[in-house]
Amino acid sequence: MDLQLVLDEGRRRADEALERLLPPETQYPPSIHRAMRHSVFAGGKRLRPILCMEAARAVAHSLPSGVEDLGAALEMLHTYSLIHDDLPALDNDDLRRGRPTCHKAFGEATAILAGDALQTYAYEVMARLGCPADARVRIIEEVAHGTGTIEGMIGGQVMDLEAEHAKPDPATLEYIHQSKTAALITAALVSGGIYAGGNTADISKLRAFGRAVGLAFQIVDDVLDVTQSSEQLGKTAGKDSATEKLTYPALFGIEESLQKADALVAAGCSHLDNFGERASTLKQLAAFLVQRKS
Amino acid sequence: MDLQLVLDEGRRRADEALERLLPPETQYPPSIHRAMRHSVFAGGKRLRPILCMEAARAVAHSLPSGVEDLGAALEMLHTYSLIHDDLPALDNDDLRRGRPTCHKAFGEATAILAGDALQTYAYEVMARLGCPADARVRIIEEVAHGTGTIEGMIGGQVMDLEAEHAKPDPATLEYIHQSKTAALITAALVSGGIYAGGNTADISKLRAFGRAVGLAFQIVDDVLDVTQSSEQLGKTAGKDSATEKLTYPALFGIEESLQKADALVAAGCSHLDNFGERASTLKQLAAFLVQRKS
Repeated sequence: MDLQLVLDEGRRRADEALERLLPPETQYPPSIHRAMRHSVFAGGKRLRPILCMEAARAVAHSLPSGVEDLGAALEMLHTYSLIHDDLPALDNDDLRRGRPTCHKAFGEATAILAGDALQTYAYEVMARLGCPADARVRIIEEVAHGTGTIEGMIGGQVMDLEAEHAKPDPATLEYIHQSKTAALITAALVSGGIYAGGNTADISKLRAFGRAVGLAFQIVDDVLDVTQSSEQLGKTAGKDSATEKLTYPALFGIEESLQKADALVAAGCSHLDNFGERASTLKQLAAFLVQRKS
Repeated sequence: MDLQLVLDEGRRRADEALERLLPPETQYPPSIHRAMRHSVFAGGKRLRPILCMEAARAVAHSLPSGVEDLGAALEMLHTYSLIHDDLPALDNDDLRRGRPTCHKAFGEATAILAGDALQTYAYEVMARLGCPADARVRIIEEVAHGTGTIEGMIGGQVMDLEAEHAKPDPATLEYIHQSKTAALITAALVSGGIYAGGNTADISKLRAFGRAVGLAFQIVDDVLDVTQSSEQLGKTAGKDSATEKLTYPALFGIEESLQKADALVAAGCSHLDNFGERASTLKQLAAFLVQRKS
């Protein structure tokens, strides 16, 4: 399938689900719902929902009905993490996807609560998904673990902050990237596979693919922070070196970092060989993630 | 049953579950796990776990095995809300349960992430509870809704902040109290009932009881803020009037507020009459909640 069509169609599906599932701006109390929607509808690429939906399609041979709601829940979790990451006490960023960050537009208190609420909504949505209850609890467990403190998203954010100005250390760097970014990407792929009724072998292949491709994705993110302008990225560029963050380009240089990303994508895709043709879109998506420019 | 025994035994059970379920302080990355445990093990009364376990006992005639894990998840959610509520951008409180608040002890960034992580863990724990998967997803949906933005905990916090310095208005005041406090108390009772396999009638009675008693609980909380010292409360007293918060004593005076609380408890307890003897502990707990001094 044409990759651009997959990206466009996936984004449209995810946006429709988010629009349907999130309370309208007029819902009382309006300030919090405006803040949530400000950050959710800021023009994201919806990569996590797309990876989730394509994993489900690869397992089930066609897109399972209702899987876009799971994609929307994953995007809510991703957005909550961005809102909190941007806060003055954390990365202190004014710009995200080319718009004022949530706390810049609505104040810190509302931004903290809007992040909290997006996490809460994600679980409410996952509890009501259109797959059997035992698949729903497995999905919730998987996603909670992937966004938690032990090799999950929050653990990665913690070490990302603590490693600022720290001595460069490849093991810490890999922990940060694997946890901060790859864990949620992996949870997106695995939960899509569970939604589609995948067996143990399917799930473990999607997990291995996710870990490799998710790490490659974050390496490329760090490289883009160095090589692209704020305008191209839609967020403040050059922040990593300004805050002396521990990154792949800082430790290995740009060339070697990009080589590592390419090698990870190749290794990740090899895990999907048994899927045959059904995995071709996931493999194309993996290649796209390391070739993107923003 | 002797009420003090119920409170002591319930707290012990909840603490044991929290100790078992939360990662140890040594778990990498240690800073976040220390911060989570600092706030969770600060000497809370564990009222929400106790209400949850007693609701389950009332439905099942004896305490169902494993329900304390659900109680622990509810306490994690309560603690996450306290950590975020205490932040400088929200209530800016230095003292909680007689100890430095999380951001005072660990810094704002870690406090934000520790609150986030306690919410995440609560859902991971609920996904793994020892009741059937269809009960687990109903529990998760109930709890997420009760802590969300529409007549849930976050909605109440939002309006609580927005109503500072606002014109006194009984309808807004009731929305705030019902959402900020009563919704999670109600979710604790209802989820305990679901865990125990309660039927629709059981659940709707527990819900009506929770709404009334939860509102009474918050009214008494506001009264204690006026009448008790910081030492007695283990948190900064007199904050509500200092920040011109919209409260029951500010709107109706102390006497009338306490009369309202008593009337709510009586009305709440009447919903449990069909439970007969099985509800006697819940009724005693309701009376205790309005007679407490801290």
